[in-house]
Amino acid sequence: MVVQIVKVMFPLSRLHVTKSFPLMRFMSSLSSDSSVRSLLYKEYGEPVEVLQFGDSALGKLEGNQVLVKWLLSPVNPADINTIQGKYPSKPPLPAVPGNEGVGEVVAVGTNVQNFSIGDRVLPNGNNLGTWRTKGNYKAEDLLKVPSDIDPLAASVLKVNPCTAYRMLRDFVQLKPGDTVIQNGGNSAVGQIVIQLCRIWDYKTVSVVRDRPDILKLKEQLKELGANEVLTEDEARKTDLFKSKKLAVPKLALNCVSGQNALEVSRQLANGGVMVTYGGMSREPVTVPTASLIFKDLTFKGFWMSAWYKKHYGSKEQIDMINEIAQLFKEKKLVVPPHKLVPLNNYREAIVNTLNAGGKTGLKYILDMTNV
Amino acid sequence: MVVQIVKVMFPLSRLHVTKSFPLMRFMSSLSSDSSVRSLLYKEYGEPVEVLQFGDSALGKLEGNQVLVKWLLSPVNPADINTIQGKYPSKPPLPAVPGNEGVGEVVAVGTNVQNFSIGDRVLPNGNNLGTWRTKGNYKAEDLLKVPSDIDPLAASVLKVNPCTAYRMLRDFVQLKPGDTVIQNGGNSAVGQIVIQLCRIWDYKTVSVVRDRPDILKLKEQLKELGANEVLTEDEARKTDLFKSKKLAVPKLALNCVSGQNALEVSRQLANGGVMVTYGGMSREPVTVPTASLIFKDLTFKGFWMSAWYKKHYGSKEQIDMINEIAQLFKEKKLVVPPHKLVPLNNYREAIVNTLNAGGKTGLKYILDMTNV
Repeated sequence: MVVQIVKVMFPLSRLHVTKSFPLMRFMSSLSSDSSVRSLLYKEYGEPVEVLQFGDSALGKLEGNQVLVKWLLSPVNPADINTIQGKYPSKPPLPAVPGNEGVGEVVAVGTNVQNFSIGDRVLPNGNNLGTWRTKGNYKAEDLLKVPSDIDPLAASVLKVNPCTAYRMLRDFVQLKPGDTVIQNGGNSAVGQIVIQLCRIWDYKTVSVVRDRPDILKLKEQLKELGANEVLTEDEARKTDLFKSKKLAVPKLALNCVSGQNALEVSRQLANGGVMVTYGGMSREPVTVPTASLIFKDLTFKGFWMSAWYKKHYGSKEQIDMINEIAQLFKEKKLVVPPHKLVPLNNYREAIVNTLNAGGKTGLKYILDMTNV
Repeated sequence: MVVQIVKVMFPLSRLHVTKSFPLMRFMSSLSSDSSVRSLLYKEYGEPVEVLQFGDSALGKLEGNQVLVKWLLSPVNPADINTIQGKYPSKPPLPAVPGNEGVGEVVAVGTNVQNFSIGDRVLPNGNNLGTWRTKGNYKAEDLLKVPSDIDPLAASVLKVNPCTAYRMLRDFVQLKPGDTVIQNGGNSAVGQIVIQLCRIWDYKTVSVVRDRPDILKLKEQLKELGANEVLTEDEARKTDLFKSKKLAVPKLALNCVSGQNALEVSRQLANGGVMVTYGGMSREPVTVPTASLIFKDLTFKGFWMSAWYKKHYGSKEQIDMINEIAQLFKEKKLVVPPHKLVPLNNYREAIVNTLNAGGKTGLKYILDMTNV
């Protein structure tokens, strides 16, 4: 496998992120070409085995359709699980992978009212297949975002930032000064949680795995707005809450499960809620009976796809997308660490997303303009 | 230890229960004696070691107090844990044990408006100490119940039936035909759950431990109204829900935890709720990450004492007590299997409650009129 290193960015270098990917580049890249370069899988299996990269002809644009030229699309672990057939949301085969990304409208069907050429769009549905250079989509399957949003931010907006946003909004009525505790503080969602909490004036305690460069990581997360960053061992022994330095957390966010989640749940206030959105340890969540009965803790889960399925096209969804887009535009939110790779180098993105297992926090983003 | 077998009753013999304990016996047993026979503990520890049985003088009745002659008081596992100092709700020492029971008003203070001599009362607070023949209580610490309720039913009304009632009411909006699944189906709470579900037209699936007389137990629970009674092994393999014989359960009640609770939770519908109110296996609740994220299950706990603390004296509480009292009066609810022992034979009640570990389902009730 030829691995082509394209670009590595870190969120702390905010100027770098925006400067390195100017809007102009996309805006001048309209194409009338009728061929599509695309990834495709005809059976479920390991992505490096079942994914095929090739060209196909673009179908005729129907009256209710919009032709979208995809610009960028991240590789999320859920994309890989979908290709493996291990994800509950299974597209019919053959399928083009990719569930998130940002595109540009290059043609609109005769009956389409609400899109114009040049509009920036996100996929407004599950498994629409964004890992291709272009495609025709029903207008209702697309969602417009402000045209002046950084395309990198737009490409990763729909999954991780929205997951963080909903988990902070929908489970506990938080007020300024309240504490949120989370594990996987260095994950893509974890970093957005830290930033949203800073914006909304909630305090965050982020638990991360110990590592050789732990001090550097702590500093990076604190620059994003983290109040406290603790290793698992430090979290177990912390007296942050007993000493009243921070309010006892009402909300815990868990993407690790296992022993880590158990320790995090012990820090919750009476009546607190732990929301699980991932299980990187591959262990279940262990809940002491006493913490349910006597501490009145609640354990729930969150799945962004299910939320979308229930809320696509709702005011709630549009408000969320616009609010997050605005925060990116104002540079109050920065895109977590990422690396761009051309679509045809998809293997690098997939292998590293699989192997990283969340340890590096580096998100791979496929670049469909560079193929 | 001398074990005196007093009386064993089984809920199926409904007439037996009421006939064996006639109201008249209490109603004619007023006493002006100023000495109190009581259990008392001066330090936390094993009940058979720290409990003392003896006589003391009754204090002067204050103007805002009511003198109650206690008739019957059950021995709940929580009473034992309280004496051991292992329960979160700790009375100041020295303390008279007993948290539940039924008494009769034998005198009222000059300022008390809402109680009369002859009223039947329950303790309306935690740790008021019912394991004594009589005591003076503030009027607000007592709750009147209908005088014609079976005293046996009244003595056990406040904890187990109210726990079953609240768990069926407060977590999931159930409608007729919905299914509730529970483990510990033979426990005191489990039997009331079965009966309340029959009354409210919910279906129940009760999971019980396998035992030599399993067929007899199944029959007994079905006579109470159980739709299905399954051993743990049968529950794991059941196709009751796949076959659509019963609706997939929206609510699961758990007093066992461990592997048993895990298997029960697997039967829940998407969006279902498991409420934990006990942990007889002494294992935690294990929650697969996928069941939180993709099945949207919720895991919560219920603690009757905490509910009371929040709702004492509320309309909600009074309505509940009256509704349950009425159901006992109409013989729609029957008291779970129990055995009466005189107060001075408390050791038998405690040792057996400790050892039974929920296996026999036999509740010990202290009889203060027979000491």
